[in-house]
Amino acid sequence: MLGRTYDKEVCSAARALEIVGERWSLLILRNAAFAGMTRFTDFQKSLDIAPNILAARLTRFVEAGLLATEDGPEGHPTYHLTKQGRDFEPVIVALTEWGDRWAAPDGPPIVYEHAGCGGRVRHELLCTKCGERPRPQDVTARKTAVMDKLQARRRSRRAK
Amino acid sequence: MLGRTYDKEVCSAARALEIVGERWSLLILRNAAFAGMTRFTDFQKSLDIAPNILAARLTRFVEAGLLATEDGPEGHPTYHLTKQGRDFEPVIVALTEWGDRWAAPDGPPIVYEHAGCGGRVRHELLCTKCGERPRPQDVTARKTAVMDKLQARRRSRRAK
Repeated sequence: MLGRTYDKEVCSAARALEIVGERWSLLILRNAAFAGMTRFTDFQKSLDIAPNILAARLTRFVEAGLLATEDGPEGHPTYHLTKQGRDFEPVIVALTEWGDRWAAPDGPPIVYEHAGCGGRVRHELLCTKCGERPRPQDVTARKTAVMDKLQARRRSRRAK
Repeated sequence: MLGRTYDKEVCSAARALEIVGERWSLLILRNAAFAGMTRFTDFQKSLDIAPNILAARLTRFVEAGLLATEDGPEGHPTYHLTKQGRDFEPVIVALTEWGDRWAAPDGPPIVYEHAGCGGRVRHELLCTKCGERPRPQDVTARKTAVMDKLQARRRSRRAK
């Protein structure tokens, strides 16, 4: 599953991009998550992309565990988000909000709502210790012992 | 700025991807945001990408408004996140969290912390009406009047 473009990166964002970072990937996930699409032909018509590209993306998502296939009513496979695939939705919400703020001069074409109460759903950063919502500039990244271990493993592989 | 791969999409996530969705783009932003990089040579060494690709990505970010350039101490330009660029950080945090959960069998190589108190920072969905944190399956997307307007505009352009 790994060993692609960002292979040298010890980073979960890079690992995520190996799975969802190819052209059209995120919009396929968006349509599965928020338009309820399951059929190849629906993805293909809605996105107007080449069938071979769509097939490659769907296969990749199935291999990576974001989509599962079932036999549809007419014998064609249908594609369904797994827990792993559905768990990606907050990333799409975050990306959409950024686009709404910085690349949607006419206003948001879609809004995300809470099925429970119909309220608008937003995403936010939350500090799990003090409960504050930190501003982006107040968020720092710290390397963990896992980073040290993985970097050492890479160095030792390269030395062989 | 627009008029690229996802030109037919009336969607803020697609518009965002036109700006940040090219190969390496997100990792360049990550390094600007969380590793404090500002110099071309630092981005280039850390990511080990072709200089022409890095130059194209940085130029695109400057054009789109995520980075601003300044003259550095040795006469070379340096690149600094604008408010728009910094506002993208939560998307990187969300993507990293997903990668931590689904593509990091050894555990998270980095963690995000709140500079104020040192607490762990997480990304959450929040319903602005009832205050709940909805599960992904309880989030729905609703088209707005902006979507209708933009789709009508496109149809009328195509008809001309």
